[in-house]
Amino acid sequence: MFESVDHIGIATADIDKAIETLAKVGPITLGKEEVIEAFGVKAVMVAAGSVPIEFVQPLSDDSGVGKFLKNRGEGVHHIAYRVSDINAALETLKSQGFRLIDEKPREGYAGALVAFVHPKSVLGTLTELVQRESGKDVAPYDPA
Amino acid sequence: MFESVDHIGIATADIDKAIETLAKVGPITLGKEEVIEAFGVKAVMVAAGSVPIEFVQPLSDDSGVGKFLKNRGEGVHHIAYRVSDINAALETLKSQGFRLIDEKPREGYAGALVAFVHPKSVLGTLTELVQRESGKDVAPYDPA
Repeated sequence: MFESVDHIGIATADIDKAIETLAKVGPITLGKEEVIEAFGVKAVMVAAGSVPIEFVQPLSDDSGVGKFLKNRGEGVHHIAYRVSDINAALETLKSQGFRLIDEKPREGYAGALVAFVHPKSVLGTLTELVQRESGKDVAPYDPA
Repeated sequence: MFESVDHIGIATADIDKAIETLAKVGPITLGKEEVIEAFGVKAVMVAAGSVPIEFVQPLSDDSGVGKFLKNRGEGVHHIAYRVSDINAALETLKSQGFRLIDEKPREGYAGALVAFVHPKSVLGTLTELVQRESGKDVAPYDPA
């Protein structure tokens, strides 16, 4: 079901500072910053080499990411896996007893269809499924 | 410098149970379980589809992973990036002010050269560099 790691989601209080830190590792490719109201975050996809990393900064302290930062500090917030059919993937996970946060996909960064699975049921890891539309199957951090 | 995500490291109190959970997602390829005394863990590489995940289970409560589990519970423990020249990568990171846990690489799972960078200096994320020897450049979870 998991085809690849779509991206690694890192929560940060300051996207600009996070980008600056990552740029010290080596060349990065910077995506467009987006406000995703539904998730209460400002997000940007950054590729370090070929590794896609999504920085998410909370819009408010009481959003999910805001609480995460308060409780645990900056760090890995979620792991996102690419799937070809997100509805089928959600069905499978549900039938296997995984606890879905999103029963149906919603729109995430760069218009992808995304859905989250509760960390309590997946090895303590907030897990995101990502389906990119055919024809939009480019890495979202690709500015082209 | 980061060529790809080598693996996602997940801390667990029970490797067998973690494997069982991951197998519910879909077909997995299971690597060999190894005890890595230097890191105080029992480790196994598991591929879910093409995604390599390393489960690490502490050998004792006072090991790094033991403390992690006690403080934060099961979850993402580290992100490992593949590099072609780990010594050069460590030099670069050091010169850029990153705080190295390992100044020199040591032997990790499946004989790879690995080194860790302190989470305090890398976006709250325990970061592992992994160099696989030429000729051994196969995914370690590949049982072949």
